Amino acid sequence: MLYLVGLGLSYTTDITVRGLEIVKKCKRVYLEAYTSILMQADKEALEEFYGREVILADRELVEGGSDEILAGGETDDIAFLVVGDPFGATTHSDLVIRARELGIKMETIHNASVMNAVGACGLQLYQFGQTISLVFFTDSWKPDSFYDKIMENRKIGLHTLILLDIKVKEQSIENMARGRLIYEPPRYMNIETACSQLIEIEEIRNEQAYTENTPCVAVSRLGSPGQTFKAGSLKQLTQYESGEPLHSLIMLGRQVHDLELEYLYEFVDNKEEFKRLVEADQEFFKPPAWVPPEENDSD
Amino acid sequence: MLYLVGLGLSYTTDITVRGLEIVKKCKRVYLEAYTSILMQADKEALEEFYGREVILADRELVEGGSDEILAGGETDDIAFLVVGDPFGATTHSDLVIRARELGIKMETIHNASVMNAVGACGLQLYQFGQTISLVFFTDSWKPDSFYDKIMENRKIGLHTLILLDIKVKEQSIENMARGRLIYEPPRYMNIETACSQLIEIEEIRNEQAYTENTPCVAVSRLGSPGQTFKAGSLKQLTQYESGEPLHSLIMLGRQVHDLELEYLYEFVDNKEEFKRLVEADQEFFKPPAWVPPEENDSD
Repeated sequence: MLYLVGLGLSYTTDITVRGLEIVKKCKRVYLEAYTSILMQADKEALEEFYGREVILADRELVEGGSDEILAGGETDDIAFLVVGDPFGATTHSDLVIRARELGIKMETIHNASVMNAVGACGLQLYQFGQTISLVFFTDSWKPDSFYDKIMENRKIGLHTLILLDIKVKEQSIENMARGRLIYEPPRYMNIETACSQLIEIEEIRNEQAYTENTPCVAVSRLGSPGQTFKAGSLKQLTQYESGEPLHSLIMLGRQVHDLELEYLYEFVDNKEEFKRLVEADQEFFKPPAWVPPEENDSD
Repeated sequence: MLYLVGLGLSYTTDITVRGLEIVKKCKRVYLEAYTSILMQADKEALEEFYGREVILADRELVEGGSDEILAGGETDDIAFLVVGDPFGATTHSDLVIRARELGIKMETIHNASVMNAVGACGLQLYQFGQTISLVFFTDSWKPDSFYDKIMENRKIGLHTLILLDIKVKEQSIENMARGRLIYEPPRYMNIETACSQLIEIEEIRNEQAYTENTPCVAVSRLGSPGQTFKAGSLKQLTQYESGEPLHSLIMLGRQVHDLELEYLYEFVDNKEEFKRLVEADQEFFKPPAWVPPEENDSD
């Protein structure tokens, strides 16, 4: 049996009681260690809490050799631990499909992930459109496909959750070219960088999917003791000192309910100013919701 | 201190270890009992597992008299338990805003909810648009505002999570008129009803936001031992025997990745037929992504 166990966001104790029972009884326990980190716990802390060995599973192991993880899964119990919920990232679908091919049964122990816990900032989850990812730009590589997705979301008034790049166990181009398995220190995109990159792309594309005055919410260390929300314009947040990782960003859509706004006021420097930002931003994609054109003559 | 504690989806043991520690130490523990149910546990099972009393909090208590829940919260620890994650429903924002007004500190213990656990069906969470709710129709009341939201999602190729109505502690019109506090048995919308209602509204609106051939995924008893996924056309699913609650439905958008499709094949009667449904449905909102018109002359 393969158990996919979500670890939640931060503490060793964010695992569910059921998840912990399973981890304790499994023959091998892998920790997926390349798409996110548990903010308040490393491998050693987890091993101490579980009272057993935990095997770090990096990208090579999961994507290249999932058969190693799944070995013996027809008879043995194997746990694959994932920060957040196991179904947050594509790569785990891969593992599950492979397990199926091998005839290995599977059970998921779900947990909170940024995709639902982000509701803690007061914005309603059902008002979010598609989620986008923002990667670290380089001088020559500034992928901007996210821009169209933000445009689509905002055209219909929806909020956009923006997941920020995490680089764990990455090689420099030189080390990669020379085949040296030397890895760079981990990097986690902060709010300042994310907002600067977003403004940079808006300046290039200039289609006003958003502007530097568009209201956003910085989500820092969600679910951990240092959890912080900060609401302000994109431009203001380029100056925000967001601190330790992990961070996410939300760009507001036009459909901001009064109750949402009331909630966000707790996280602003100046309530009146933020209200004006929200109202000004609501002018961009009027009318309230995009209505598709009548395309057929059947009526 | 007010602790908002997510219970997850199904088992008593779906609470996190941290959540359980908090529940055990609080002075009063309330269970929100009107927006969802824990599929494998009732109040008594929770009380036995926690080793303490749990107070049922119905809509009247939470929305009308949240001060009763919050009483003493400046000095005492109070837990408010919510099935899924505490930030799934608007009503809890209300409670949090009231706690703030009273100067009561607050901490959230997140957990899985349908909003993220639904990824277990193999569709990628970042490809979902706004979430909609479908209520039980009556002869005279068939609210269809969800239709425009599905249209918006599907125009840009996104999947739509459809939350199905739950009626707990509802009064009949007659009992309400006579002021009798007699409640109807709980009702949980099943897949068959949901799909029939969706087709009914498409027949009325006739704007082809979707058709009876649009591919959908029935999500039944998510996170519980009897968890079942079934993929098929909207029409096929009107004949599906979805069984015990709870249920949700996903309507696919055009942006179905191969990996998503591969995953869904596990849940179909006929793989080739389902593939044809998906391909036919992809014709509806071409081109691949909706591109906003150029509205300004600034360039």
